[in-house]
Amino acid sequence: MDAGREPQQERSRATRARLLDAAVRVLAERGAAGATVGAVAEEAGVSRGAAQHHFPTREDLSLAALRHMLDRRGEELRRGVAAVPEGAGRTEAVVRMVVDAFSGVDFRAALQLWAAAASDPVLRERITPLEERMGREVHRAAVDLLGADESVPGVRETVQATLDLARGLGLANLLTDDGPRRARIVRQWALTLDSVLARPPGATDAPPDTG
Amino acid sequence: MDAGREPQQERSRATRARLLDAAVRVLAERGAAGATVGAVAEEAGVSRGAAQHHFPTREDLSLAALRHMLDRRGEELRRGVAAVPEGAGRTEAVVRMVVDAFSGVDFRAALQLWAAAASDPVLRERITPLEERMGREVHRAAVDLLGADESVPGVRETVQATLDLARGLGLANLLTDDGPRRARIVRQWALTLDSVLARPPGATDAPPDTG
Repeated sequence: MDAGREPQQERSRATRARLLDAAVRVLAERGAAGATVGAVAEEAGVSRGAAQHHFPTREDLSLAALRHMLDRRGEELRRGVAAVPEGAGRTEAVVRMVVDAFSGVDFRAALQLWAAAASDPVLRERITPLEERMGREVHRAAVDLLGADESVPGVRETVQATLDLARGLGLANLLTDDGPRRARIVRQWALTLDSVLARPPGATDAPPDTG
Repeated sequence: MDAGREPQQERSRATRARLLDAAVRVLAERGAAGATVGAVAEEAGVSRGAAQHHFPTREDLSLAALRHMLDRRGEELRRGVAAVPEGAGRTEAVVRMVVDAFSGVDFRAALQLWAAAASDPVLRERITPLEERMGREVHRAAVDLLGADESVPGVRETVQATLDLARGLGLANLLTDDGPRRARIVRQWALTLDSVLARPPGATDAPPDTG
């Protein structure tokens, strides 16, 4: 190995990581239009030239930032999975984990990209597969942690609904800080989830309405 | 009444309504930054001067468009309430009504305003009360239609969760058309809602799960 090269590669990786972290913050705070290479370089304390070497265009930078968020989310998910308690409180911890996956600065940054993609078909085409990957990973983690049997009617939809609920809570939280409300909903949804998932295979608690 | 004045007021009202409808479309398609008074005037087929007479600034126009959407949503809600069937299928119809309240061009337009408000505290302060009004109205309609007793523990949170679910489904739908998935989730959510709401007192068609 060339001893002179490694530190340079190391520095380059560190610069790249600093730019991506800065891009997430700038996206969340100023929106997709405001997340120019220049603005992100300044936020990261990196020269504009160095930033452009890594990310020639604003779109390159935004998409790399989205991938960076997803990678980080994947890691957090794996750490979260390891930390979920067994027994009582497990379901609530899982629901909280899913809800947390759609919150914070990452969610705010991603939302700005989704909003921009609504009027930009090319951007939409590029971010949709990334979002689908994120959805699949969170879904898979939730199913595993809940020990949910998706062959039981309704279980798959209920786990999916948990993700949609989390996304909606993230959106509600964007305008107003509704932490206490969110905590109550998480708690109640965990109870509901327990009762839906605890059905014996094939059983449904709501018989076809004969009325 | 001055016979010459009334038609003018009428025309003015019609112009205003045309501008607001156009503003919703432009917001949804081009985002908050793209919804300038000039762009909306052009979309509405109204002169820029006439548009500026009604709405001096882009912000005036955007906020009026949001109010316009909420008024329209309120009307749709009242019509929807009248159309919800009694008996079997009622809960699913209510869930669909709530989900529909967070979809379509109005939702996409509102989302663009929320995204813009994330980086604009003044706009955020102005749109938050409007969003809260919308949330309260949909919540109230859902509670009434479901005959939900919010004094029963968990009922209030579950109805609120229905709104958050709807918001999340709207957001998921922004990038990909997921109508079939949404229909399955609505159906399952209605079953879950029935079992949560059907707790005594006031038990209806879905007995508590004893399994």
